Amino acid sequence: MHPYRTHTCAQLTSAHVGETVRLSGWVHRKRDFGGLLFVDLRDHYGITQIVADADSPALAVLDRLRVESVITIEGNVKARSAETVNPRLATGEVEVYARHITVLSTAEELPLPVADEQPYPEDIRLKYRFLDLRRETLHKNIMTRVAVIADMRQRMGAVGFNEFSTPILTASSPEGARDFLVPSRIHAGKFYALPQAPQQYKQLLMVAGFDRYFQIAPCFRDEDPRADRLPGEFYQLDLEMSFVTQEEVWETMEPVIQGTFAAFAGDKAVTPAGEFPRIPYDEAILKYGSDKPDLRNPLIISDVSAHFTQSGFGLFEKIVGGGGVVRVIPAPATHEKSRKFFDDMNDWARKEGYAGLGYVTRKGGEFGGPIAKNHGAERMAELYAELGLGENDGLFFAAGKDADAAKLAGAARIRVGEELGLIDESRFALCWIVDFPFYEWNDDEKKVDFSHNPFSMPQGGIDALNGQDPLTIKAFQYDLVCNGFEIASGSIRNHMPETMVKAFEVTGLTKADVEERFGGMYRAFQYGAPPHGGMAAGVDRIVMLLCGAKNLREISLFPMNQRAEDLLMGAPSPAEPRSLRELHLRVVEPQAKPAT
Amino acid sequence: MHPYRTHTCAQLTSAHVGETVRLSGWVHRKRDFGGLLFVDLRDHYGITQIVADADSPALAVLDRLRVESVITIEGNVKARSAETVNPRLATGEVEVYARHITVLSTAEELPLPVADEQPYPEDIRLKYRFLDLRRETLHKNIMTRVAVIADMRQRMGAVGFNEFSTPILTASSPEGARDFLVPSRIHAGKFYALPQAPQQYKQLLMVAGFDRYFQIAPCFRDEDPRADRLPGEFYQLDLEMSFVTQEEVWETMEPVIQGTFAAFAGDKAVTPAGEFPRIPYDEAILKYGSDKPDLRNPLIISDVSAHFTQSGFGLFEKIVGGGGVVRVIPAPATHEKSRKFFDDMNDWARKEGYAGLGYVTRKGGEFGGPIAKNHGAERMAELYAELGLGENDGLFFAAGKDADAAKLAGAARIRVGEELGLIDESRFALCWIVDFPFYEWNDDEKKVDFSHNPFSMPQGGIDALNGQDPLTIKAFQYDLVCNGFEIASGSIRNHMPETMVKAFEVTGLTKADVEERFGGMYRAFQYGAPPHGGMAAGVDRIVMLLCGAKNLREISLFPMNQRAEDLLMGAPSPAEPRSLRELHLRVVEPQAKPAT
Repeated sequence: MHPYRTHTCAQLTSAHVGETVRLSGWVHRKRDFGGLLFVDLRDHYGITQIVADADSPALAVLDRLRVESVITIEGNVKARSAETVNPRLATGEVEVYARHITVLSTAEELPLPVADEQPYPEDIRLKYRFLDLRRETLHKNIMTRVAVIADMRQRMGAVGFNEFSTPILTASSPEGARDFLVPSRIHAGKFYALPQAPQQYKQLLMVAGFDRYFQIAPCFRDEDPRADRLPGEFYQLDLEMSFVTQEEVWETMEPVIQGTFAAFAGDKAVTPAGEFPRIPYDEAILKYGSDKPDLRNPLIISDVSAHFTQSGFGLFEKIVGGGGVVRVIPAPATHEKSRKFFDDMNDWARKEGYAGLGYVTRKGGEFGGPIAKNHGAERMAELYAELGLGENDGLFFAAGKDADAAKLAGAARIRVGEELGLIDESRFALCWIVDFPFYEWNDDEKKVDFSHNPFSMPQGGIDALNGQDPLTIKAFQYDLVCNGFEIASGSIRNHMPETMVKAFEVTGLTKADVEERFGGMYRAFQYGAPPHGGMAAGVDRIVMLLCGAKNLREISLFPMNQRAEDLLMGAPSPAEPRSLRELHLRVVEPQAKPAT
Repeated sequence: MHPYRTHTCAQLTSAHVGETVRLSGWVHRKRDFGGLLFVDLRDHYGITQIVADADSPALAVLDRLRVESVITIEGNVKARSAETVNPRLATGEVEVYARHITVLSTAEELPLPVADEQPYPEDIRLKYRFLDLRRETLHKNIMTRVAVIADMRQRMGAVGFNEFSTPILTASSPEGARDFLVPSRIHAGKFYALPQAPQQYKQLLMVAGFDRYFQIAPCFRDEDPRADRLPGEFYQLDLEMSFVTQEEVWETMEPVIQGTFAAFAGDKAVTPAGEFPRIPYDEAILKYGSDKPDLRNPLIISDVSAHFTQSGFGLFEKIVGGGGVVRVIPAPATHEKSRKFFDDMNDWARKEGYAGLGYVTRKGGEFGGPIAKNHGAERMAELYAELGLGENDGLFFAAGKDADAAKLAGAARIRVGEELGLIDESRFALCWIVDFPFYEWNDDEKKVDFSHNPFSMPQGGIDALNGQDPLTIKAFQYDLVCNGFEIASGSIRNHMPETMVKAFEVTGLTKADVEERFGGMYRAFQYGAPPHGGMAAGVDRIVMLLCGAKNLREISLFPMNQRAEDLLMGAPSPAEPRSLRELHLRVVEPQAKPAT
């Protein structure tokens, strides 16, 4: 007999009744009936009920053992009586009468309960992560994460991608976020950097002739703590393809992403592969007020500026006259809502820092509110007819400069949808946002900057760069959005050296700058580079969506806290003086503020 | 039609004759016959022959295009004439008559030829790695690497392991090699470290109740350049199991490792799973003079000290009398070898720093050489009979202190085996080396140290630690060896806090030291830890063996050079002054040596 177990704690059924078995696991729960003791024995796979009665040598041992101690039980499998069968447990038909017990490891008093999942302070959970990870929900989330990643790997392999590991000790990347630096011992005063993403390496792989690359890639950004990003490292499903158009990237990846979502979505529906809407960026900003639209929300924003070039509602007339816009968000079937509902929405908008959210109410065809009154019921009815709104639908108004109005309308769309319970929680709604602007105006520095990725190919190529207002140029660049979250981003890359130099020149950089900053890749493009493109999907975000978790730490194994500390292992920590000498570094303590 | 390709460069066969196709790839080779030009068009998948004749608009374009430029060809598939069919090429039955060509990317003059694989300076190859990687052998090796890793993942999954990613930004580990440090921006003067291995995290995963962990794990050691290790990072197939004995680890992993080897071994035989010899460390040192024996070499070392307690060969008598040993390595069927063969072996041993390698020759039963002469033919014949040696077999002698003699004998065994052509190159010979000593004597510090892994469980547990001479204690620790290379190492871990403290006390450390250095893990063991064990296999080494490569850079994607520099991306490099300020660091330039 195996010294520790003949079965896992999830295997025994009524088919095993009468057998002598050996199980090992953690004492999950104890129930003591005086001379009769029940133990839920737990391992990775499940729970089995152990019974020790007065005849059992295990009784005394179990009696004094703390929960979470690790034991081996040898005993007989018995059928439970009909009334004690537990249908929610895989092993619920049986229990094991303990004949022999070995204590493998005793537990001290727990700083964090395992069997109950009551909320506990984050720092205790992180310091005792090995206990926290035994809790059912977190354990399950982690196993979902593991399974999602394995599933992605399998699907990527099935469509011809190969997984390559790119270097983790690499060069500092001058664009993007802040790098983590790693001092070199051999080269005094020089540093490696941890990759923010394998962007340049994956493009080099294409130039090197590997046709379809992917990687579950660790990425590192030394950013200040943000609610939606863990400090330190995160994982991307990173991929790149040669000789492709953006349509081919989408067609290749829709079945992969859809397949993974569907495999873990449970009862929820997932947008079918081949049917992901492709929404141009400008349209997304107009209709959803966001480039991350939640398509589970049926509300669509409309531009009604034309209705207010002349209006009794002077504010809107003035805004439109001044080049601004008026956008509206329907609030369907709100005839029974009180005035307070509408006023609260306006208050919310003000609290969020907007000028305010106007509204029109309607009940049985009757309009209400100052906008309707001033604009006039007849013209309001025309507007309603144009929008296809009914006699009991309200309407919210976001007016102002184009970008501001779009942003407010987008936020209001989400809030109205939530308040009215319009979000269809039963599905994962996926879509592509496409045709992102290549450049944007940097108002601080009064210059043109890249909006997203400087390595993207501008639509129209070098001709567009030479002949077109830069701010009107679109890129072959796209995001994948699910339920209001960006879950992936990608582009067709600019593989042409002259086009690359030209693209940077528009932002005020020279050919020499390009050579200095992106030397490896720029050099590579001189020696035969295939057209290529790809994307990177956020693994953590996808797992969060699939687990229904609200916090990245609920789907991460050993996360740091928001102060970027690993409380379990004690990182970061001071370095040995010898290490600092070897690295040619001296720590410069921050100057203490003078006492006041 | 797809804008870039209807087929890859490996797909067209005689079945496609008559079709109009589009192919994209690199101009691998050009052969110009004046008005008729042949191009080998290459992509990741293969090569297709393109023909441009005087009628083709492609002729002029191809004529002036440098090799390694990237093109799209549209043309007609034609059957080659019988005499021009190339059976070594998947597409060798056909060629494509170019009707239209698009140049996607022109190549400058190459710093490194691709089509030929002549040796080139390492630094050029690394700087232009994207060209180097296009070369057939390296491209193939990398794809083997990718396939080996995918195969390992699949096999590990099939036997119930789940892949977990452990943190890369973690705490400095006080044992083992030198860590790479990562300065913290938020915590002045503190540092993260890159993991030398996920040892503590994988043990914590077992304590957290995850039953079978594996990871293709990036590991980092800031070591000085060594021929058998690349600077920076390397990969391990890392795994850990709960509730296991060492036998179960071996039984679980033999089919995985054997399976992967067999899948990529080509014609070579691989030791069958279930039949890996398990050789105790002491036996390996005696019989092979090494804990990394190459079992393809049939030679076995024997200890013949007992024959020389009294001998006419005074040197050996003296050595044995002084507590030393005499070990012998057979040199079978060397009766035709000249005296020079034996003398050269002795010279080699001296050059390697040993006292010398004695020998006995034998031809038709007649002994030769000073040892035989002095020891006497009759007693030498007894020794031969005991060893089962024949009348034409020579014998080499390694004498001295136990460890020195073993080491020389081991080196001589390899050399004799190679010189006599006895190594069976047709197989991968796998074996376990088991029962490693738990401690070793540190003669510099005159103290007992851990020999390998301080986290291993000593055989006999705490009783052995309390009652036994530490240097006689074995550990539940094992290596996996293939063809003379250690390819994996593992152990059953010490999961008992008191045993752990006791084990460290033997080396002069206190409980407080253990708590300080291994706080996370030591703390974890207080709250219910399962018995667990595992191993880590060197992915790079295994791939090297399977590719038959002699150098790690031949199986690595973007390796650094031996000065730990990434010549392609330019790492390491100086940090921006702003970055150093943010990291609270100042670089201390090494002092220049005074001029002499």
